[in-house]
Amino acid sequence: MNIGMIEAAARRLQGHARRTPLLSSPFLDGIAGRRVLVKAECLQHTGSFKFRGGYSAISALEPGTRARRVIAYSSGNHAQGVALAARMHDIAAVIVMPSDAPAIKLANTRELGAEVVTYDRAVGADRDRIGAELADKRGLTLIKPFDEPQVIAGQGTTGLEIAEQAAELGVSRADVLIPCGGGGLTSGIALALEARAPGLRPRTVEPEGFDDVARSLASGRIEVNTRTSGSICDAIITPSPGEITFPIMSRLCGPGLAVPEAECLRAMAAAFARLRIVLEPGGAVALAAALYHPGAVAGETVIVVASGGNADSEMFVKALQEYGDGS
Amino acid sequence: MNIGMIEAAARRLQGHARRTPLLSSPFLDGIAGRRVLVKAECLQHTGSFKFRGGYSAISALEPGTRARRVIAYSSGNHAQGVALAARMHDIAAVIVMPSDAPAIKLANTRELGAEVVTYDRAVGADRDRIGAELADKRGLTLIKPFDEPQVIAGQGTTGLEIAEQAAELGVSRADVLIPCGGGGLTSGIALALEARAPGLRPRTVEPEGFDDVARSLASGRIEVNTRTSGSICDAIITPSPGEITFPIMSRLCGPGLAVPEAECLRAMAAAFARLRIVLEPGGAVALAAALYHPGAVAGETVIVVASGGNADSEMFVKALQEYGDGS
Repeated sequence: MNIGMIEAAARRLQGHARRTPLLSSPFLDGIAGRRVLVKAECLQHTGSFKFRGGYSAISALEPGTRARRVIAYSSGNHAQGVALAARMHDIAAVIVMPSDAPAIKLANTRELGAEVVTYDRAVGADRDRIGAELADKRGLTLIKPFDEPQVIAGQGTTGLEIAEQAAELGVSRADVLIPCGGGGLTSGIALALEARAPGLRPRTVEPEGFDDVARSLASGRIEVNTRTSGSICDAIITPSPGEITFPIMSRLCGPGLAVPEAECLRAMAAAFARLRIVLEPGGAVALAAALYHPGAVAGETVIVVASGGNADSEMFVKALQEYGDGS
Repeated sequence: MNIGMIEAAARRLQGHARRTPLLSSPFLDGIAGRRVLVKAECLQHTGSFKFRGGYSAISALEPGTRARRVIAYSSGNHAQGVALAARMHDIAAVIVMPSDAPAIKLANTRELGAEVVTYDRAVGADRDRIGAELADKRGLTLIKPFDEPQVIAGQGTTGLEIAEQAAELGVSRADVLIPCGGGGLTSGIALALEARAPGLRPRTVEPEGFDDVARSLASGRIEVNTRTSGSICDAIITPSPGEITFPIMSRLCGPGLAVPEAECLRAMAAAFARLRIVLEPGGAVALAAALYHPGAVAGETVIVVASGGNADSEMFVKALQEYGDGS
């Protein structure tokens, strides 16, 4: 992994991914006690940064390999990003999803052009085995969600944009808070900032109780979550950081942060009222850290990645009913 | 009014106003039966296009006049736009608001740097008279909400961006649907499109029952709403189009559209789920027309201005509870 791969991914994504805006509000600055700049990846195609990695990986394939199609296992943001990126390459991704996934998610994934293959969780079917068999039989290429160089390169284009946008605003030193699951987004951004904006320091943010990355960064080796379900921040929950992503994060990131889940809902309400964007709980962890834990952050400016906006309407209603405008 | 004034406003706004993105979603295309491009002015500073007009008007003043400060009468988007634009010029705007306005609106306007002067609606105080006396006594310059050339020029910068962004996407013919109150935004966009993208046809959208502009366009003279309160689309309700704005709209706009208020809530839900942006009801009228009245629109592509995102959390909750994802 190196900056050249991220630059190459940026060239492939040019005109296909959105250059998402860096938003701000005097009200958020007031809450945080410093300038807050929010990289709104919720406005990316399919509502999260995952489109970048999916597009990067698919566009990097040899045409013949690509024509034999790609496969992903996910019912979430990675699935949607891969599905749309595949369609933009005139192929239909195969997405492996549990048959009891919400009907709307199955329908949405199909509407994004994917062939959905379902498996029955109730009978203990193993999606990895089903996926591997399918991939083998049909010659499909697996697009892994984070521990994959071309996926990391795609996510890293977010970091190139942050470096440019911060420079336009005259910001050369700041913590960059990044919602972190397996570390694809964080490691990509970290490599981009190392090359383009070395005064910007990447830092991971996770929900409390699922802070495998913060603990791994502290201990210097890959630590594991004791559980991977039961969080409203499901989009960023993984068992542990990846074998490719962790060494990059360990070398380049500051100490990891963790926030209570209730603060994610509160940050969703603040983003609603002050930035007029929709965040999902996992996409709001970094904003929550910036707003409600200012003592854990250094500098006059903090940059926050708002990584995803695919919130259920029920969850969003809960955030607004409990926290109003999040101030 | 001419394109030169809009171009000059764009130069003054450069680096101060946001170039808001033109968003899209395959799901919205599916609902509308054509490509839908959404100009997300809800992401503008203070959450609506009004910042452009306020900044344009204040930046156009002679420095000595500007130093004697500006005044606006509004408790809504125009007030916030003027307040922040004034602060960016290191002056405090005077904003005249009723003393029984929601406490949060009073507090927000002050936090944007304005001096808030309240009047007592209950004793029949007249805000125009209070404002005129204040302006006279203190030498303040009134920034009118729409019927003012430099305000129209500022709003017209939205149209310059639409022309550029549509060209980047290869779109040279489309209806451009614009939420319309007094016509400042519509007339500014119309002039910009006439000069830069003559194949894009501006059209106004209003809530049913408050369709003074559509009726005025049809009759060829300024028509008046029978009432100006009681709409959830309060941000775009005015008694009638302006004396400056109407002739421009009459010359350049296609037939006006009107949508039921319930469809605004439904469009808010669709924008939440598919674009991850927050719209207020008045900011969603044009999207509602595009999604739910496809027969009233011409062409393979429709461009929609999403003009504002300052929704109360209660109203947003209602939209999500009633319409889910708006499909």
